[in-house]
Order: sequence, then structure tokens, then C-alpha cells
Amino acid sequence: MDYFPAALENLVEQFAKLPGVGRKSAQRLAFYILDQPEQTAQDFAAALLDAKKNIGCCPVCQNLTDGEGTCPLCASSKRDHATVCVVADPKDVMAMERSREFSGVYHVLHGVISPMNHVGPDDLRIAQLVERVASGGIEEVIMATNPDTEGETTAMYLSRLLKPFGVRTTRLAYGIPVGSHLEFADDATLMRALEGRREI
Amino acid sequence: MDYFPAALENLVEQFAKLPGVGRKSAQRLAFYILDQPEQTAQDFAAALLDAKKNIGCCPVCQNLTDGEGTCPLCASSKRDHATVCVVADPKDVMAMERSREFSGVYHVLHGVISPMNHVGPDDLRIAQLVERVASGGIEEVIMATNPDTEGETTAMYLSRLLKPFGVRTTRLAYGIPVGSHLEFADDATLMRALEGRREI
Repeated sequence: MDYFPAALENLVEQFAKLPGVGRKSAQRLAFYILDQPEQTAQDFAAALLDAKKNIGCCPVCQNLTDGEGTCPLCASSKRDHATVCVVADPKDVMAMERSREFSGVYHVLHGVISPMNHVGPDDLRIAQLVERVASGGIEEVIMATNPDTEGETTAMYLSRLLKPFGVRTTRLAYGIPVGSHLEFADDATLMRALEGRREI
Repeated sequence: MDYFPAALENLVEQFAKLPGVGRKSAQRLAFYILDQPEQTAQDFAAALLDAKKNIGCCPVCQNLTDGEGTCPLCASSKRDHATVCVVADPKDVMAMERSREFSGVYHVLHGVISPMNHVGPDDLRIAQLVERVASGGIEEVIMATNPDTEGETTAMYLSRLLKPFGVRTTRLAYGIPVGSHLEFADDATLMRALEGRREI
């Protein structure tokens, strides 16, 4: 690798640090940047610094936001502030918003309880959620963590933590995904879908 | 997508511009950057700007190099400057160097002749190669463009262009790759391997 100029080698290494980018891809990306006009590299660099500098967490829902103060969702008077949907990740907020079904507000935990990865309740934004609920005005907390062991554990933990405050805690329904085929559904999902069956 | 802060959305877009990076991957990469300490973003941004600013082409072989003047290979007295290996891409120089078989110098075309992509001889560093050969001291020019139609065309074109200068022009051998299986070799490769057979 002696014949990569140092600056190029450095750029390759930076790309290779990204998740899911191996050394070969990193080289391809670095060569792509070199092939582009200087403005491309400048825009990219500015976006990196800008994102890191300007994006913080909303003091209310802990979702990512730029600018000062609360995020647009928490600040909106059109949203139902008595219903809080608890998600693990900012990406999950996007997913919920895409469904256009939910008009409440969110609380982003920034992770789930995972003893395997040494993530305990104190590493998440749980204290802020408790504080939010304790300060009143919230009627329902919907646990929308992922339907896996860790998401489930987190939902159960939060549910027990929040019950004393007299709020309703609910969990997203399990079942077969819309548009899928029964034959491809796994046993656990089918069992949950049966358990949760409704009259039509 | 309303609920991505603008700075994050911008970063996602920058990542999505990279070849082979779709919107989902771009989101993942952008979230990764946000999760990292600020130094990561700063290092990345610096590497981008630095690579673009400091990397230029060697005035002799047109390979990428940083710093002023000729590249380390062209400046080296240990290399055989009478043998020039013509490659399409800086990446091909790395590949050749990895083989540790070649002790001459290179000439990087920065592409191949490709009428389909509107790349003609004038878009490549061919004039510089002709000049190099014309100025004397070169005995052999090895065409090491890729063994595809465009690489072949480029090699033939250059070969005809350089013949009048009295240099030997050669082409890399075709054949079955080392470590592969005959049964998986395609017809064209097998044909070439037969044509190029040698006594043992």
C-alpha cells in the first residue's frame, strides 16, 4: 500500500471506519471523491461538521433536532401531547411518522436495555421520560420498541416504572405483517397473531 | 421526511451521493456520525478536504501523488525507467505493485477509450504518453489495460500510435487465472489460454 499518497490513504481509512464499509469500498469511495469537483468534497465536509455541531436532542422528547429549544413535533399545537409513543431510536420516529397514523408526541430512548451490550436503564433517556410523565398531562404511553427480546424487556421495564403514575401503558400489536404470506410467518409471530385476533 | 433536522437531512444526502450508497445506508452512516465523538466528524471532514486539495497527478506518469513534483515511483532510481506499464486507473498501479513482479514505471491513462461513454483519446492522458515516448529513453511499453473490449481497443489504439517511435509495445498475457478451475473458465479465456500456450 506504499503507493497510495498519504492524504488518499487517510481518506480511505476514514471511509473504512464507517459501518459496513470495507477497505475495497472505502477505496472506491475515496477515488470517487477525488474524481469529483472540489465543491463536492467541501459540501461533504461542511455537512459532516454542520450535522455534528448543530444537531442536538430535543429537551422534551430527546429526538434529534437542530436549532435551539424543543423539536417541531413537541412544539406543534396540532399534536396530541397527552399520548407519548416511546421508541428506541430517532429512525423509529421517522417510521411512525411515515405511517401518518399517530398524532401524539414521542419519547426517544436512544437505545434499549441490553445487559449483553452493557446498556442499563441509566444509559437511556428513561429518567427524562419518568420526569415527563410525573409532571402530568400525559394519559397514555405507547411502548413502540422493537418486537425483540431487548425491546420487549425495555417495554416491560418502562411499563412497570410508569404504572405508579396512573398512566395507561400500551404496546404495539403483534401480528402478521400486511402484504406478507402466512406460510412465511414464523411460529412466534403466528402465535401472537392468533392471540391478538379480533372479531370482524 | 419532514422530521429529519435539516443538517441531518443534508448529511444523509451527501452520503447518498456516494456510489453504491442508497438512502437507507446513507441514513445509517449519518446516524453513525452523529453517534461518534465530534473528533470523528472533524477528522473525516479534514481528510476529505485534504485529499482533494493535496492530491494531484504526477507530471510524468499521471498517477495520483501528493506533494510537489514527480511521484515516488518516477523519482526512484531503483526502477527501470525504460519500461513503461500503461494502466487505465491509479488502482491498477496498486494491483501491479502488489504483484512485486514489475520494476519499471507506469503511465496512468485515467480511463479507457469508450465511445459508449463519450470518452475519446483526447479525454485521456494519451498526449502525455506520446510525449514521454517521443522524448526518448523508453524501450518497451506494456499495455496493461483491462482485458475487456474497451481496454483492448485502447491497447490497440496506443500500440499503433506508439509504433512509429520504434518502441516495443506488448500486452499482458491472457489465460486462466491462477488457482481457478478450468470448468469455470469462459470460452474466450480458454481460447486465449490455448492460443498463448507455452512449452514446459
